[in-house]
Order: sequence, then structure tokens, then C-alpha cells
Amino acid sequence: MALPPPAVVGIPLADVDTPALIVDLDAFERNLARMAGRANALGVRLRPHAKTHKSPLIAMKQIAHGAVGVCCQKVSEAEVLVAGGVPDVLVSNEVVGRVKLDRLAALSRAARVALCIDTTALIRDTAEAAERAGMQLGVLVEIDVGGRRCGIAPGAPAAELARLVDREPSLRFAGLQAYHGSAQHKRTHGERRAAIGEAADRVRVTLDALERSGLACETVGGAGTGTFEFEGASGIWNELQPGSYVFMDGDYARNLGPDGRPVDSFEHALFLHVTVLSTNGSDRAVIDAGHKAVSNDSGFPDIVGRSGAVYHRPSDEHGVLDLTRCNDRPRVGDKLRLIPGHCDPTVNLHDWCIGVRGLGSADPHVTEIWPVAARGAVF
Amino acid sequence: MALPPPAVVGIPLADVDTPALIVDLDAFERNLARMAGRANALGVRLRPHAKTHKSPLIAMKQIAHGAVGVCCQKVSEAEVLVAGGVPDVLVSNEVVGRVKLDRLAALSRAARVALCIDTTALIRDTAEAAERAGMQLGVLVEIDVGGRRCGIAPGAPAAELARLVDREPSLRFAGLQAYHGSAQHKRTHGERRAAIGEAADRVRVTLDALERSGLACETVGGAGTGTFEFEGASGIWNELQPGSYVFMDGDYARNLGPDGRPVDSFEHALFLHVTVLSTNGSDRAVIDAGHKAVSNDSGFPDIVGRSGAVYHRPSDEHGVLDLTRCNDRPRVGDKLRLIPGHCDPTVNLHDWCIGVRGLGSADPHVTEIWPVAARGAVF
Repeated sequence: MALPPPAVVGIPLADVDTPALIVDLDAFERNLARMAGRANALGVRLRPHAKTHKSPLIAMKQIAHGAVGVCCQKVSEAEVLVAGGVPDVLVSNEVVGRVKLDRLAALSRAARVALCIDTTALIRDTAEAAERAGMQLGVLVEIDVGGRRCGIAPGAPAAELARLVDREPSLRFAGLQAYHGSAQHKRTHGERRAAIGEAADRVRVTLDALERSGLACETVGGAGTGTFEFEGASGIWNELQPGSYVFMDGDYARNLGPDGRPVDSFEHALFLHVTVLSTNGSDRAVIDAGHKAVSNDSGFPDIVGRSGAVYHRPSDEHGVLDLTRCNDRPRVGDKLRLIPGHCDPTVNLHDWCIGVRGLGSADPHVTEIWPVAARGAVF
Repeated sequence: MALPPPAVVGIPLADVDTPALIVDLDAFERNLARMAGRANALGVRLRPHAKTHKSPLIAMKQIAHGAVGVCCQKVSEAEVLVAGGVPDVLVSNEVVGRVKLDRLAALSRAARVALCIDTTALIRDTAEAAERAGMQLGVLVEIDVGGRRCGIAPGAPAAELARLVDREPSLRFAGLQAYHGSAQHKRTHGERRAAIGEAADRVRVTLDALERSGLACETVGGAGTGTFEFEGASGIWNELQPGSYVFMDGDYARNLGPDGRPVDSFEHALFLHVTVLSTNGSDRAVIDAGHKAVSNDSGFPDIVGRSGAVYHRPSDEHGVLDLTRCNDRPRVGDKLRLIPGHCDPTVNLHDWCIGVRGLGSADPHVTEIWPVAARGAVF
């Protein structure tokens, strides 16, 4: 039921229908290369998170840059990724229920597939699904490193869970999942460093407990765009899972570096292209993008190149720009570029990414159109 | 690229994969009949808003209950609705740009189509698109009745705009669009009544100005689920545009009636069916539904039948339930039912609505599966 794309290859950016997701291909490629280079320099593997882009095409570009595979959060995402040619997918999440486990086990015939477990209650169901498929599934034991979401307690409880996984012939204990989600957007460098320092302590006691149990731990996975430098340099994690770096959120760019200034390691490569619908009232302009076109859960989008214009009061299909401090007021029909506050759920609202070359030039053109193939893959 | 539905007709609700949108068909049908009855009793036309459900199938049920047609907000929604058989669609929004105007004018060959205009700058573009298609387009002049979003100033400016529309042979001045969005969720009955009272004053001065210009005003459209009783009883509006009543938001149900108690005119008919993924930590359970499965812009979802369990800390694919005050703690694998805070953007996240009969019974079953055909129709 996907609608046709809002552009065709070859047209100028100005002719792309709105609202539309625009990828600055030049910035995107620099982001891909930069993260690959960082992982290389840190001496760790890179397994980028595909929940950001939901695109096998982008996943394959990440793999071409040296990534060992990708992560995703849902079995249905894994299916779309494997169908698109991705050879190695970790579902970095718990998978609950026979329907999903059977699908994942079946998928493991076509690609290397692993998943996370954080409770003994899931071991039998997972092992039986693998048995029914005649396959062995890789399992990471997820530990709670401070995010207080999923994950078993570190140390002995995690090691005991690993031992029970390892006892199942159809499961293979593949390591630890140690992702600290709530650390990613802590604003100061010191807060993020401290949070990952504590997470490292929790991984360390778990590694010690595993060693006492005689269990090898081939992978310690985790990290996101906000903290990967800490995990990468820790000597503990050996597989990084950042996702947002390819597009770079507005919100991530509000994180501060060691010098107290906003981090600038990655460039904004994802934009929402919008049109001004209405300018009645001297204080405002109304654009054609509200909750159904941009996710506002991590702050409202920033507006490129219109100093003083502030997005506020979103409704389902509209956003209101407060222009009281803007001297360059847009007119009806003007097209604007927004930086989404949070890329992942914004991408999930759209069926297409419109790839543009020369975005900073006088004459940017559409050169690629990518389906958001796993959009809506929530199962 | 839509994924297959998370259910097949005939299976028990317990076997529906999660997260999934569930429609309580019994409550849904009562809501349809109740709103039709209210419009009838008020002596006004009903043109429900299809932006809530994005489904021609549901639109046709509303029309079968007496609605004169439906509204939507986007040209691409109108296309999907007309393709699904809907004979009369109002785009209750400004339509900007030649691409969209040409598509809407072309669509007017297949169905009765109208749109809104709130500035003279749009008249020529709209008229030319209608001329190119060899059609006449209906135009409502949108006035700002207090929402400070789109809409020209009431009174003389609106009447002058109507006069300019009426002068174009390819356009037909069809009336006023007078929707007060921000009044819908004002909490007390008195606040909503006062807001619509002020809106009525703004419509009245506009009707007076139109009369002085010798322009007939066949339609005054507006109203939503939160305020339609006021518009309907005003003697001014003659076409009501509520949308949410079919499903009924968690947030709408927090509106208070004249007795100071929550309104109960419509029933919750839309639910998110979810699974518990993890219960590590004595204070919480983690479910498989975050920002990508439920919209949190108007408050977090409520949880049905687990007193004291509170949804909080949503992330992209997870929601955390605070169980510190819950005595009936869910276990891993349990399925729960959530009432979305805001139905419209939640529906837009899903490809399918799973229709269930006997939801309150011991053995609810899937009896219908409806595509959210205009999901992602943001253009």
C-alpha cells in the first residue's frame, strides 16, 4: 500500500513534493566512512543499528564499509533486511512468542541470525523454535548496564543465564548485549563518560562470573552514537552498535563534547523537506508537516537557514513556525528544510528517502530514491 | 511495501501478533451510529474526518450511516479515498503547489472534490489547475476562528477572499471552513463552550460580510469530537467534521462534561495489543511498543485491566510499565491492551486494523482485517 515516491530521479530538489525525507548523500557517505574509520581506529567491530534507517540498501553500504552485519529490534525488520541481502543480523532485543521465534529460526536458514535473552523463561521457547527449524541460534545474554529497561542483573545472574543457554544444543551462547540507551542523550561529556564507566563495571563483573563458569564470551555488544567512543576505548566492548550516526538527529547534536561545545563528529544528513501553507497572522507561518511527518518525542525540528524561525505547536498535519524573531519570513509556497529532532521514528513515518547530491550547492538534484523497506515492521 | 497483517480472520485475539491495532467492532459500530444520530438530532450534515482512520472502507461505513462525504487533510489521502469508492471528499486544508493542485483537479473528474483557501495568493494557482483539468473545484474559504493556525481573518477579509474566488469561472465558492482545533481538548465543558462561542461570533461577522457582498454561503463546516455539540446547536454551522469519535482517544476521554465528570459519549474502540518482553527489576515490565507503535504526543497510553500499571519512559521500540502501584503484575509473554492517547497519529503508524468481535467476552475473535490504506499519505 506504499504510495509512489514524492520525486523521480533527475529532478531538482525544489520540485520534490512535500513533506519528504531528503538524504544529503554527500554528508551521509562521509558519516558512513567516518564511523567505519573510528571503529577501525578503536580496534573494534562495527555492527550498525538498522532500526534507524530500516533499509537493507543502507545496511549493505554499511557492510561494504567494513561492518560485520547490522542490528535491528524486531523479527519483521530482520526478515526485510535478510530479504534485501543482508547476511548477518542481530535482533538486539528479546523475542517473545512462538510465532516470532519460529520466524526468526526459519530466517536463520538464509542468514546468520542472533537474538537476545534476559530471562530463563525464554530459553526453552527459543531452543524449541531452533529445534523445529533444525538450526542453531546465536544468543546474546542482555544485561542491564544502567538503562533499567530490558536486561538481567549483571554478574552471577547473567552468568547463570548464559550457562543455561549454553546447555541447549540448539542455542549458542554468543556473548553479552550491554547497551545503555539512556546514556546516549545525556548532555555533557562527563555524564556520558560516567554512565558508560558504570556500565563497564557491570560488564566486567559479568565477564568475571562467566570466566568462573568457564564460558567464553566472544562478543560484548552495545554503544550508540552518543557514547560509542567510550565503549570503543574501554577494552571491554568489542562490537559497537550505533545507528543514528548515518543521519544524525537534531537531538544528538545537542550533546556536548569534552570542550563543552556541541559535538560535531557527524553531519546532519537527513532532512524533512516541507512547504509553507499559510502565513496569516504576522507572527507565524504554517507548514505541511506535523506529527505524521516528523517525530517530536525528542524535541521539535530545527529549521535550516531561517534564523529565528522556531517550530512549535505541531498538530497531526501542520507545524506552526513562530516568526516573532525571524527577519527572513517565508511566504506561502516556499520550501524549507527541517532537521528532525529524532531520526529513527521520523524515518518510520515515511515510505521513501529521496537522495540528493550537492545539497549545499545552488542546484541540488535527486540522484537516488530508496524505499524505507522495513517501515512499519513493528512485529 | 506493506507487511502482511499480524492476524488472519478467524483466530482468537490471543493469537494476534503484537504490537497490533485492534478495533472493537461492536464499540466502533455503536460510535458510528451514535454520531449519526447526534447529527440527525441537531439537524446538521455530517462529514466525518477521514484523517483519523485513513480508510475508504470506514469512510463508506460512515456514508452508509448518512454522512454526506468525508474530509481529509492531504491530496494523497483524497486520492486513496476516491480510489476506494468515496464519492465526496473535502480537503479541509490549504493545497499549495502545482503538482498537488493538478492531482486534486484531476481527481475531481472521479468524485466531488473541494478544498480550502485562506489567501489570495492561492486563487490563481488553484483556478489554473481546475482550468487545465477542465473542471470546476469547490472552495471553502478557511477563517481563523481562534486556533491561530491556518485561516484568514474573519469578517471583511474573508468575504473579500470569497468574492475573488467566486470571480474565477473554474472555482465555486462553496462556503466557510471554520474549525477550531485547539478548542477540542480544552478540559472543561465551560472552556470548550466559550471557545466555540467566540468562534461562532467570528463566523457570524463573516456571514454578515458575505451577505453584504451578495454571496450565498451554502456550507459552514467545522467541529471535532470535543466540541461538535456546540457547533451543532449553534444555528451557524451546518456541516460537522468530527473524526476521532469512531475510535475515541485516551486524551479525548479526559475531557470533562457539564457535570465535571469525564465525557462518555463515545467508547474506546481502538486498542494497541502488546506483549510483555521483560520483567527484570521488581518495579517494571517492558512491552514491545514504543514511539514506532503508539503516538505519545497527547499523553501516554492507558493500560486496560491492570490497575496501577502506568506506561512511561517510551523509547523507539519499547515502553516501560511502572508497576510500583500494581498488584496484578504481568509476566513475560502476557498480552495487554492499551488505549492510545491520540488515535490519529497512532493509526498512521500501522498498515492494518484488526477487527475483533466480542472483545469483552471470554473468547474474542478476529472477524475483519482492514488496511490503513492511506497510511503515510502525507503529500
